[in-house]
Amino acid sequence: MNRTSASPGFDVVDLIRRKRDAGVLGGEEIDWLIEAYVADGIADEQMSAMLMAIFWQGLSSGELARWTEAMIASGEEVDLSSLSRPTVDKHSTGGVGDKISLVLAPLVAACGAAVPQLSGRGLGHTGGTLDKLEAIPGWRSSLEPDAILRQLDEVGCVICAAGADLAPADRKLYALRDVTGTVESIPLISASIMSKKIAEGTASLVLDVKVGDGAFMTDTQRAAELARTMVALGRAHQVKTVALLTAMDTPLGRTAGNALEVIEAVEVLSGGGPDDVVEVTLALAREMLSLAGIDADPALALADGAALATWRAMVVAQGGDPDAALARASHIETVRAERSGVVTRLAARPVGVAAWRLGAGRTRKEDPVSAAAGVVWLARPGDEVRAGDPVFELHTDDPDRMDRAREALAGAMEIGDEPPPSAPLVLDRVD
Amino acid sequence: MNRTSASPGFDVVDLIRRKRDAGVLGGEEIDWLIEAYVADGIADEQMSAMLMAIFWQGLSSGELARWTEAMIASGEEVDLSSLSRPTVDKHSTGGVGDKISLVLAPLVAACGAAVPQLSGRGLGHTGGTLDKLEAIPGWRSSLEPDAILRQLDEVGCVICAAGADLAPADRKLYALRDVTGTVESIPLISASIMSKKIAEGTASLVLDVKVGDGAFMTDTQRAAELARTMVALGRAHQVKTVALLTAMDTPLGRTAGNALEVIEAVEVLSGGGPDDVVEVTLALAREMLSLAGIDADPALALADGAALATWRAMVVAQGGDPDAALARASHIETVRAERSGVVTRLAARPVGVAAWRLGAGRTRKEDPVSAAAGVVWLARPGDEVRAGDPVFELHTDDPDRMDRAREALAGAMEIGDEPPPSAPLVLDRVD
Repeated sequence: MNRTSASPGFDVVDLIRRKRDAGVLGGEEIDWLIEAYVADGIADEQMSAMLMAIFWQGLSSGELARWTEAMIASGEEVDLSSLSRPTVDKHSTGGVGDKISLVLAPLVAACGAAVPQLSGRGLGHTGGTLDKLEAIPGWRSSLEPDAILRQLDEVGCVICAAGADLAPADRKLYALRDVTGTVESIPLISASIMSKKIAEGTASLVLDVKVGDGAFMTDTQRAAELARTMVALGRAHQVKTVALLTAMDTPLGRTAGNALEVIEAVEVLSGGGPDDVVEVTLALAREMLSLAGIDADPALALADGAALATWRAMVVAQGGDPDAALARASHIETVRAERSGVVTRLAARPVGVAAWRLGAGRTRKEDPVSAAAGVVWLARPGDEVRAGDPVFELHTDDPDRMDRAREALAGAMEIGDEPPPSAPLVLDRVD
Repeated sequence: MNRTSASPGFDVVDLIRRKRDAGVLGGEEIDWLIEAYVADGIADEQMSAMLMAIFWQGLSSGELARWTEAMIASGEEVDLSSLSRPTVDKHSTGGVGDKISLVLAPLVAACGAAVPQLSGRGLGHTGGTLDKLEAIPGWRSSLEPDAILRQLDEVGCVICAAGADLAPADRKLYALRDVTGTVESIPLISASIMSKKIAEGTASLVLDVKVGDGAFMTDTQRAAELARTMVALGRAHQVKTVALLTAMDTPLGRTAGNALEVIEAVEVLSGGGPDDVVEVTLALAREMLSLAGIDADPALALADGAALATWRAMVVAQGGDPDAALARASHIETVRAERSGVVTRLAARPVGVAAWRLGAGRTRKEDPVSAAAGVVWLARPGDEVRAGDPVFELHTDDPDRMDRAREALAGAMEIGDEPPPSAPLVLDRVD
């Protein structure tokens, strides 16, 4: 534990105290903080105190831009300038049943853009895009940089793991935030997301900021603040950025799980699938195409098979078999409606927690996930049910997990006499 | 880095987040936090985040009492109940030229109390009582518990190092706070001071909370809040506690350094010495005697040699030679008045910093200190000086240190045309 570094000689305790007391960190001080932390020149206990001070005092827009810049500079930046297509990516803050990336990347690519989606894995009750795709036999999440470029050129989209060189400061900072109660900070969340998206080299970016009980942000005002902060950060780094705030009180579609969501995504890519998934996907696709300067109707690309063809090409390019049967759980049980009536509410978080407990999600980042596990809901708000009708299917390979999943689902579906008022899916737009 | 401990199963991240969000920690949770941290079951980066959260959100009086209790319970409590004399101790929050403990312990003992002063070392610009006493050849700061009891019985006072068993949680927490910018928190300061004083077994305690430019607390309101918090903590643990707020804008007496301050303390014990040291010493002595239920005039004990005799007995009991010549610096330089006039201000902090830079203080707790180094000021506010008169003496064994000490003193003494208004030394009393 040193108070100072040999070069350029900032005193980390002075910097912590300054931020703690609502002061502003200078650009070189921020560069040094991130660089020294990644190089183990600042101890974890010092950085966690700094992060808690930032949790409280925030970062000015200038500080945040520099902080994000320093995180990007901790690794390599991907250069996509050789691509002939305009690049545009999407990031979701995470929701339950949120398989939209699986549809969106091939859909927007089918319309003429290049979508370089470097993704992460799921933690807790929201699933990760890579975990879902890994349910496809043979599919590889890890690609070399030249393979990514080639695939973007030939197929138009790639969804793969971010390499260790992409903003390594974020990996170290996120692990620290996770164990020190400093995750829920708008500037720190923004820097984490945007450092990776900017470093991946996309020219444009659409953010899907989820709001509601099943999302990281449960409050619309905080979600809007997060969206504004990220949009400003993107613009400050010459990435054209737009955010949609979308509802996450009800889980998206009809499934939460890995293989289950791949199957549902393929239904949407084939021109079918649940209305809510289609609606949010098209809203995001239109924003992405607009930023990329492409005049195309994404609904047509779903209807005419172009999106599905791009999906199949993407899966094949990454070693997967798009026609392979996906894992199916060895144990499937149902939960039945306790009364007759109309579904008035289906809470996203308990559904996500149930899928997680069944094996679809992980608690620690080194945990494996089950491809087959998950939850299927057979009724959504507005649907009529009769007492005794099955309303949930619980899928797992480990029957010991059933009880805790049932516990999570208790009360998740409310049944009443009157249908609920219809609620919009896209709540707001920030650009 | 674990999120949870096996037993009793609290989740430290939950506790950090709760405190961060202004929640209250339960008694068993606090016990577990301190116990697990001392046992290395909670990582430094987690505790530093918790400390920064406490810095912001504070601790309720109930939480603080339990936190302090848990720190005491991390080690051994001293049992002084076998002593025939009433026990009373004093703690100072630290000032420049603050040699009062050296006088006060033998003075109050000479009046009939037992003073069990377990002390620490200095850090930064304020000196430590043990460092000062170690300027006496042969004097030992480290005593076995039975030797402490015997000395309290026979001499009436002891000033020695707190053993490793006394509130070990404080040692670990303080070291962490020092490197994480979480020192300046009233509940954390209070718990740190009071855990040690309560564990040392004294029945009564007088706190000298220094206020001003040369003190840890520069603001009277914050100092009063610290005093109230510590007094309430003492009472909650059945230690009769009173605090005086005393001025620390001007350094006390005429010297700052180790041997230099011992010499000055002996002058006061001999019935002489600077007026300000005598005044603060007597004010504190009267509070201590009152808490101990002893009706005696401490001024008399200074005048009649009783305090000096007790001092000599205390030094001898700890292996020191009270008649030994003390170290004198090999290099002494003077700073001269730039103009004629009356001293209007002598700033404590620069004097403390100069003494520190000359070698009297330490930057890190493992640094050695010089017995001989220090600063003597030859004029105080209200004194008349002529241009060219020596106003400071710089004492050091390392002449390379002179320049930086001179730099620290630049502007420390202001000379004007009108004498400054007289300022009280004792600012307030909290009981």
